[in-house]
Amino acid sequence: MLIDRLINRITELSAPIVVGLDPRLDQIPTHIKEASFSRHGRTPHAVLEIFARFNQDIIDQIYDIVPAVKPQIAMYEQFGAKGIEAYLQTVAYAKHKGLIVIGDIKRGDIASTAEAYANMHIGRVDIDGESVEIAQTDFITVNPYMGYDSIEPYLSDCRQYDKGLFVLVKTSNKGSKDIQDVILANKKPLYTHVGELVSNWGASFIGECGYSNIGAVVGATHPSEAVELRKLMPHTFFLVPGYGAQGGSGKDLKDLWAKNYGAIVNNSRGITSAYQLEKYQCDEKEFAKASRQAVLDMKADLEAYIK
Amino acid sequence: MLIDRLINRITELSAPIVVGLDPRLDQIPTHIKEASFSRHGRTPHAVLEIFARFNQDIIDQIYDIVPAVKPQIAMYEQFGAKGIEAYLQTVAYAKHKGLIVIGDIKRGDIASTAEAYANMHIGRVDIDGESVEIAQTDFITVNPYMGYDSIEPYLSDCRQYDKGLFVLVKTSNKGSKDIQDVILANKKPLYTHVGELVSNWGASFIGECGYSNIGAVVGATHPSEAVELRKLMPHTFFLVPGYGAQGGSGKDLKDLWAKNYGAIVNNSRGITSAYQLEKYQCDEKEFAKASRQAVLDMKADLEAYIK
Repeated sequence: MLIDRLINRITELSAPIVVGLDPRLDQIPTHIKEASFSRHGRTPHAVLEIFARFNQDIIDQIYDIVPAVKPQIAMYEQFGAKGIEAYLQTVAYAKHKGLIVIGDIKRGDIASTAEAYANMHIGRVDIDGESVEIAQTDFITVNPYMGYDSIEPYLSDCRQYDKGLFVLVKTSNKGSKDIQDVILANKKPLYTHVGELVSNWGASFIGECGYSNIGAVVGATHPSEAVELRKLMPHTFFLVPGYGAQGGSGKDLKDLWAKNYGAIVNNSRGITSAYQLEKYQCDEKEFAKASRQAVLDMKADLEAYIK
Repeated sequence: MLIDRLINRITELSAPIVVGLDPRLDQIPTHIKEASFSRHGRTPHAVLEIFARFNQDIIDQIYDIVPAVKPQIAMYEQFGAKGIEAYLQTVAYAKHKGLIVIGDIKRGDIASTAEAYANMHIGRVDIDGESVEIAQTDFITVNPYMGYDSIEPYLSDCRQYDKGLFVLVKTSNKGSKDIQDVILANKKPLYTHVGELVSNWGASFIGECGYSNIGAVVGATHPSEAVELRKLMPHTFFLVPGYGAQGGSGKDLKDLWAKNYGAIVNNSRGITSAYQLEKYQCDEKEFAKASRQAVLDMKADLEAYIK
């Protein structure tokens, strides 16, 4: 099962790390941008070339030391159709290099609509009898606010194609308190209720490793809540955002780890823009090597606190 | 302000109706499909042509009797980059015909990501100093589960470009009970808490009509909850899904109406696929005229219960 493959690869590399591929033009080296701008002007077409090239260079430097990457679709989609092409090219290249791909899409809608999203990202779309694969992502992130029937269409595709989900439970941002922390009649915060739902939704997807293909998003910026959820959801694998640029560190995560790790930690800008940090100062053309070093440093930071 | 323009147009047409443009291949007349399939095969390129043509024909028949349309982006996005092109062409054509466009995207993510979504849908994207408009939607739907800082970037663009939001509060699907109806420590369901938040977020966006550019999604399939929210959120305009194919009727909405209507009701399949219903039986080539008649019938059904 997918979750077993993910955990095996994490174990093999001693790296519970996923690299977030969230390109921003102001974080991309000038030599890459200028080549495309001079060919296509300052257009979405140029952005497609720039993002695809930047991500490819990063992937070439990290595919052998991390199990997975996580492109955030918003950073691509904002440029329209050309942006979606860049997203799909990035997903395809990462898969070609053997990486597990987590599509960070955070979709959530009624069943007939959820089915369309599922078709695109983890299933197949049907064009009058022709079955077409659009994205080839392994996991996607989804939003649970609309309830079970908004998640069920993804579960069907997860079963049919051995794919997985990470459902938002307790997110890394400050505003997550506004709704996720609201206290319920049973005196517990809402995120524990959502955690229990997600755990139930994933109960029939558990692999040999003891975890389900249906995981949860639990932010690194709320260590005590993360530990509470870890106990509540022993069979749910966690995708942990918030490390690095958002403030979380290896020390914050020290009580989160469980059997077979139980979690994979995301780092986006801290790795892909490492060359812009004083610590990794280098010629812009060596940016991808700085990313590799940033992964190795993150690995050491996490390892120091994994029991 | 945008909300005043929407309400003025609703009043002018006596039609608190938005037509959902959610194309599905099996609901599109054969003559439209065959022409494109024969040119481009069963490919996303053919789907782009088919959706653009189908929507254009529908828009031509309804633009003078409804104030707004609501394309559901998932139905397009599932076909990848070509699908997004079809979405953008549909938005542009509807704007060209003078319609207000509600992009049903239901996005929700941390601030830096929300900013990217806002840029695309209601703002501008910056390409190295070049300001580019991708979509031209007036309102978008967004998901509040991640809290205020995930909504704030949209509010900035709403202020700068006079755009609006409809934030999910109580959705039309059955599963909405799983999280939205959970009882809080104050004995009230979660959706009332979310309703209060949305009302506060919109407090500084209120137009002459007494409503805010920041509205709420409140399903027609839960009449008593809708009435409860109507009282709780007197300055929040409602986008009401669930009429027609999802089960809601004019009668269900009778207690929802307020000063200046206070709500706009969506109907997707019940209008765009009307020609497939026994009631509107006609030659496939007349499909768009059936859609026009379905709008007029819906208008009469709503009017019978508007005090």
